[in-house]
Amino acid sequence: MMIAIEEQLELIERGAVDLVSREELIKKLKKSAETGVPLKVKAGFDPTAPDLHLGHTVLLQKLKHFQDLGHDVYFLIGDFTGMIGDPTGKSETRKALTPEDVARNAESYKDQVFRILDPEKTRVVFNSTWLGQLTSYDMIRLASQLTVARMLEREDFRTRFDNGKPISIHEFMYPLIQGYDSVAMEADVELGGTDQLFNVLMGRDLQRSRGQEPQVVLTMPLLEGLDGVNKMSKSLGNYIGITEPANDIYGKVLSISDELMFRYFELLSDLTNSEIAALKAGIESGELHPKEVKKQLARELTARFHGADAAVAAEENFEEVFRKGGLPDDIPEVAFTASEPVWIPQLLMDADLVSSTSDGRRMIKQNAVSIDGEKITDLNGTVEPKGELLIKVGKRRFCRVKFN
Amino acid sequence: MMIAIEEQLELIERGAVDLVSREELIKKLKKSAETGVPLKVKAGFDPTAPDLHLGHTVLLQKLKHFQDLGHDVYFLIGDFTGMIGDPTGKSETRKALTPEDVARNAESYKDQVFRILDPEKTRVVFNSTWLGQLTSYDMIRLASQLTVARMLEREDFRTRFDNGKPISIHEFMYPLIQGYDSVAMEADVELGGTDQLFNVLMGRDLQRSRGQEPQVVLTMPLLEGLDGVNKMSKSLGNYIGITEPANDIYGKVLSISDELMFRYFELLSDLTNSEIAALKAGIESGELHPKEVKKQLARELTARFHGADAAVAAEENFEEVFRKGGLPDDIPEVAFTASEPVWIPQLLMDADLVSSTSDGRRMIKQNAVSIDGEKITDLNGTVEPKGELLIKVGKRRFCRVKFN
Repeated sequence: MMIAIEEQLELIERGAVDLVSREELIKKLKKSAETGVPLKVKAGFDPTAPDLHLGHTVLLQKLKHFQDLGHDVYFLIGDFTGMIGDPTGKSETRKALTPEDVARNAESYKDQVFRILDPEKTRVVFNSTWLGQLTSYDMIRLASQLTVARMLEREDFRTRFDNGKPISIHEFMYPLIQGYDSVAMEADVELGGTDQLFNVLMGRDLQRSRGQEPQVVLTMPLLEGLDGVNKMSKSLGNYIGITEPANDIYGKVLSISDELMFRYFELLSDLTNSEIAALKAGIESGELHPKEVKKQLARELTARFHGADAAVAAEENFEEVFRKGGLPDDIPEVAFTASEPVWIPQLLMDADLVSSTSDGRRMIKQNAVSIDGEKITDLNGTVEPKGELLIKVGKRRFCRVKFN
Repeated sequence: MMIAIEEQLELIERGAVDLVSREELIKKLKKSAETGVPLKVKAGFDPTAPDLHLGHTVLLQKLKHFQDLGHDVYFLIGDFTGMIGDPTGKSETRKALTPEDVARNAESYKDQVFRILDPEKTRVVFNSTWLGQLTSYDMIRLASQLTVARMLEREDFRTRFDNGKPISIHEFMYPLIQGYDSVAMEADVELGGTDQLFNVLMGRDLQRSRGQEPQVVLTMPLLEGLDGVNKMSKSLGNYIGITEPANDIYGKVLSISDELMFRYFELLSDLTNSEIAALKAGIESGELHPKEVKKQLARELTARFHGADAAVAAEENFEEVFRKGGLPDDIPEVAFTASEPVWIPQLLMDADLVSSTSDGRRMIKQNAVSIDGEKITDLNGTVEPKGELLIKVGKRRFCRVKFN
């Protein structure tokens, strides 16, 4: 199946920020079409334990586009530097990964990314395979390929340098290492977030210096979180994790603004550009209600990670909760025994509504906790250990607590 | 034979510029005296073909002091980076050395340095031995041990950076590599020129970070050339090469100023501090003529590289030349045939008085050429190819040319 170059370009360019360069991409696509040899499309991922959210899937979705167009996707796990750990010894949290850690994390990646990518068309590779073979001489040669001044063009390095924050020399090696990956893989295309532009361009320089045709560089934007303002991230709490329960994914997607909805369509949906344009037109003409369009997006994204049936069930559950004034059918029940008043954050944790007491306190601070319909505001608040309580955390987490 | 610490210190500190630190050196000397284990004294040398002049011997002389005090000298040939060559590919002249090149250069080093150092107490080592074993992981760890800001404290880096001159990342690796040498060798003391201070101090940091006692750092000044102003260097022509003929060494030493003479005594002579002080006092009191003292220095340095007999012969030759108004006994004679006027620089070269016609022109520019007692000033000057000419270049080069 041969897809016209223009059509390929439309899909590839959708949502992308940087494309270096369009001409080179066209040339590569044409050559691939002529020879029947698919392009090698590379994207690098951290070797640490993955826990992906929709923000990460923007890139995966773009990789999928390439797969849909018949090209080969190389899912590169950057275990070489991960196995070094934090060489400065300053960071306790960045321990050196063992080969076993890397293998385990790779499996976890596969579980998650194969909800989007086609396992048949995805090659999972590890850069320690080639980087681990380099000698000390090779490393010096590699280090020679870039100047200090050029490295300091990278904005985060420059800012740290100007502010007198230390930058270790090995950090300057990392972009070179990433660039060398492209040489070793003979990549045709490399994808990255916009924050990776500098590193991804490095591959072009190194490939050129070693007589290879430089890879095409494509960057994708950082996805805005549920608040529509900040980039989606775990630490800001404005994220949708791809392993979250179907009900949560569905509900969270429904909570976003109409404007953000079309951003998500563009970056996350499998709908074509013209299908999306039709939805937009429908809303503008009053033919479609924005809420219905948002439900369509919620169904699509829920189905992606949990299957079509789960998406339908999530929608039904949501409607039911909505109809009943916010109470779902399947509120879990737990029973406790206590002899003295129970601190509310502790209760939230015991009822599995939050992950820790500090998480619980944060939810209280955010006015997201209510007990029997009453908002909780006191971080030191307690409840008497008797009778039955209906606890609600956020919009969709419920628990019925019974004290014996 | 146990030499008192104070006496050792006096010899070690003579002529030195930086000593980091005196306390640590005393501690190490004491420990060595107690345990009978000599100190490991390291100095690094370029792996390129050596052609040493007196400037280089300042450091060798200091190494000799350590040998005289019973310590072990490690003559380190930095072949690791030499075998990389110029990784930027910009410099034609810095080709990667082969192991054969390195071995040949090492032999040439030995020929030269063993005119000063005791071969029995000198260990010639090559840093490729340990650096070649490092893996790519080791190199990253090494690179992590220093910050960009710290590297830019090195004056030459800073100047280049501020002037927008490129610095390749691998150049930042070189001081680390030199420092790692000290770790691998477990050096107690490292010697270097004052221009090496930054790199030599690096060894202390790396040793400390790997749980070793940091090496003591000792730097020696750059020796002034025959002009007494600029540092001695081949390119400035103000040097005495250690493989030059005895007559040349002797004559050149006699040409230096009285002030410079005592600088050379301090940095190059084997005389003790008190012997040198006595010479100075002798001149001041009028007991000794400066010329006689200078002859003593000239004899000592000539003898060092050619033996005592050659030094005596050089002195006799010099006196003879002086007595005869500048004409030595053994003026070489050459015979030429020519049909047209001969360009003087060409004649100088053919007579083996200069190495090239441009060398010849330079000597004419310096007013250093005379023919039959007449100074030559015209760079385009020629001589008629008949009769006999007495040519003099500089103070001590003569040739009698006969045209047939």
